[in-house]
Amino acid sequence: MTTVDFSNWTCPVPLRDTPNVVMGHGGGGAMSAELVEQIFLPAFGGSVADLADSAVVTAGGARLAFSTDSYVVKPMFFPGGSIGDLAVNGTVNDLAMSGATPLYLSSAFILQEGTDLAVVGRIAQAMGLAAAAASVRLVTGDTKVVDSASGDGVFVTTAGIGLVPPGVEIGPRRARPGDVVLVSGDIGVHGVAVMSCREGLSFGTSVLSDTAPLAGLVAAMLAAGEVHVLRDPTRGGVAASLNEIARAAGVGVSLVERDLPVPPAVRDACSLLGLDPLQVANEGKLIAIVPPSAAPAVLDAMRAHPLGAGAQVIGTCVAEHPGMVVAQTALGGNRVISLPIGEQLPRIC
Amino acid sequence: MTTVDFSNWTCPVPLRDTPNVVMGHGGGGAMSAELVEQIFLPAFGGSVADLADSAVVTAGGARLAFSTDSYVVKPMFFPGGSIGDLAVNGTVNDLAMSGATPLYLSSAFILQEGTDLAVVGRIAQAMGLAAAAASVRLVTGDTKVVDSASGDGVFVTTAGIGLVPPGVEIGPRRARPGDVVLVSGDIGVHGVAVMSCREGLSFGTSVLSDTAPLAGLVAAMLAAGEVHVLRDPTRGGVAASLNEIARAAGVGVSLVERDLPVPPAVRDACSLLGLDPLQVANEGKLIAIVPPSAAPAVLDAMRAHPLGAGAQVIGTCVAEHPGMVVAQTALGGNRVISLPIGEQLPRIC
Repeated sequence: MTTVDFSNWTCPVPLRDTPNVVMGHGGGGAMSAELVEQIFLPAFGGSVADLADSAVVTAGGARLAFSTDSYVVKPMFFPGGSIGDLAVNGTVNDLAMSGATPLYLSSAFILQEGTDLAVVGRIAQAMGLAAAAASVRLVTGDTKVVDSASGDGVFVTTAGIGLVPPGVEIGPRRARPGDVVLVSGDIGVHGVAVMSCREGLSFGTSVLSDTAPLAGLVAAMLAAGEVHVLRDPTRGGVAASLNEIARAAGVGVSLVERDLPVPPAVRDACSLLGLDPLQVANEGKLIAIVPPSAAPAVLDAMRAHPLGAGAQVIGTCVAEHPGMVVAQTALGGNRVISLPIGEQLPRIC
Repeated sequence: MTTVDFSNWTCPVPLRDTPNVVMGHGGGGAMSAELVEQIFLPAFGGSVADLADSAVVTAGGARLAFSTDSYVVKPMFFPGGSIGDLAVNGTVNDLAMSGATPLYLSSAFILQEGTDLAVVGRIAQAMGLAAAAASVRLVTGDTKVVDSASGDGVFVTTAGIGLVPPGVEIGPRRARPGDVVLVSGDIGVHGVAVMSCREGLSFGTSVLSDTAPLAGLVAAMLAAGEVHVLRDPTRGGVAASLNEIARAAGVGVSLVERDLPVPPAVRDACSLLGLDPLQVANEGKLIAIVPPSAAPAVLDAMRAHPLGAGAQVIGTCVAEHPGMVVAQTALGGNRVISLPIGEQLPRIC
C-alpha cells in the first residue's frame, strides 16, 4: 500500500500549453515524446537514450526483448486487416526491431459493455491466425469490461517476449555517419487504408493495410550482414522514426525525396487529405540503418523476401545537422523533415 | 495481412442468453470463464487446464512467468491506493503466484482526451514507487489517446516477466485431497475500500485497500516448504479462486466458515451492500494450497512476514464433491460456495 500523498503533485511542464491530455499526446510525435520524457521516464526511472521499439533485458541468462502496445484503431475492421491483426503483428514487429525472435504474446482486452460478442470473436480469431502466421504463441491474457459510456468496442493491449540471438546489438544509438538508410517497401499504406473507411471521411481507394509480421524479414537481413538500427515506422510514420534515430544517435539523416517509395494511391489520398506520406503510419514496413559495407547484401536479402520485395535505399546518415532529418526535394532544394507535433490521424492503430 | 473473411463468423454459444458483452463478462466469475473458454481459447489454441494467474514458458533456457492485466478501476484513486498501485502490484502478484521472482514490467496507457495531465503524473509516480517497492523495473511502454466519449480517465495495462526458480512447480492442477488451504490475511478489504468511495454509494468506513506486492511473502513460503498451488483472489474473490482450483485439480474444497478472516468493517459493509465477503476482491492476499506435512512450516513463514501476519488455515482439499467448494457454516450446516456468475462490483480493479 502506497502511503505517499500525491494530492499536491502537479504536472512538471505545461505540455504544449494544455493542462489536459489531447489527442496529440497519443500521436507518436513531439507531444507523445514530451509525455514520456516529462512524466513517465522520471517516474519510472528510465532514460530517453534507451527508448526503442522494445526493451532488451536479461533473465536467467537469456537475453530477451520485451514490448507492449495498446491498440485502439477505429474502425476495428478496415481494408486489409483488423485490430486483431495489428495487435499481434505490431508487438511482433516491435520485438523484431531489436533483432529478436518473437516467442510469446499476452493479450488484454478492455471491452465496452454492449459490444457484439461476435465482434469479439472475430477479433480473437484474427489474433489467433496472425499469431500462427508469425510463429508466436498467445499464452496469457485478461479481460475487463467497462460501461458503455467509458469504452469503444474493443481495445486490445498485447505484450511480447522475444529471444535476442547472441551477438545481435541493434538500437537507435548505433546509427553512424556514412550508414545507409533502407526502407522495406511502400510507405503510408496502413494509414491511408484506415482513413479510407473512417466515418465521415470515406473516399474511394483500393489501398489495403500492410499489416504483417516482420520477424522473418529481419532474420533474413541479419543473416546477410550487420544492421545497426531497425525501426517500424508506425504512428508518426517514417518522419517520426528517423527523427528519433537522428536524435538518439546524434547523427543527421539525409533523404532523397524521389527515392521514397510512395505508391500513387497513397500520394493521391495524402493530397486529398492534406497529409505528408512521410508522417503516415505503416504496419508492415521497417527502416534499417546499416553500415555501407553491409548495405548491398542486406538490401539483396530484403528484396528476396516477400515482405521486402519493394526495398529501397532512401538516404544516408551524415555528420552534418545532427539530430535533424533533411530531404533533398525533387526540385533540387532541401526541406527539413521534422518530428510531427501531434496527431494527423487519430486512432490509426 | 490476414485474408480470411470473418464476416460470417458468429458467436459459438449464446453466453448467458446475450449476444452482447455485459459487465459480468469482466467479473472474473462464470461469465468471464465462458468468454475465455468459448471465444479466446479456441481462437488462441490454449487449454483450460493450463489457466493460471501467469503462464510459465521457456526462452533461451530460462523458465519465465509471463502475465498481463488491464486495470480500469473506478475511481482511479481510492482509500489506500490508486490504479497505479494496482497495475504494478497486480501483475507482480500474478507472477508471484507461479512462484516466480518478478523482474520486469511493461505499461500501456489508454488515456481519455481531456484527462488532467496531473492525474496521469500522479498515477505514473505511484507506479514508479510501487515498482521500486516490489523490486521490479518498468522497462517498456506505450501511450494511446482516445476521444473523450470513448474512454474514462486512465486505463493501464501492465505485463510482467518473472524468473521461476529451478524445481518450483506451482499450478492449480497440483491440489490433492488432504492438502491444507491457507489464506494470508483479512479478506474482502480491497473491494470494500473501492466501493466505499464509489459515486452514489459512499458509506462511512475506515477500510483501506490491501494492495501490496506478494513476491517477498511467496519467496519466504517457498523457502519454508512445498507449495502446490498459489492464487491471489482478486475479482470474484476467494470464492472464484477456490472454485477454479477445485475444477482444475478435480478435488473438493472444504472450508470452515468461522475460520475465514473477515474483518468487522468488511462484514458490516457487505451486510449493507448485500455482498458475500468470499466474493469480494482482494489485491494483497493469497491463497496457498500445501501438502499437510508442509503446512505448519509454511504457515509459520507466512505469519513471520509483514504481509502474512494474519495468515490462517481456512480449510482442506477433499476427495468428496470434486470441483465443488463447500463451507461448514457457523450453525453446523453446509453451504455450497459457487463460482460467482457475473459482476458484484464492476470496475473494482
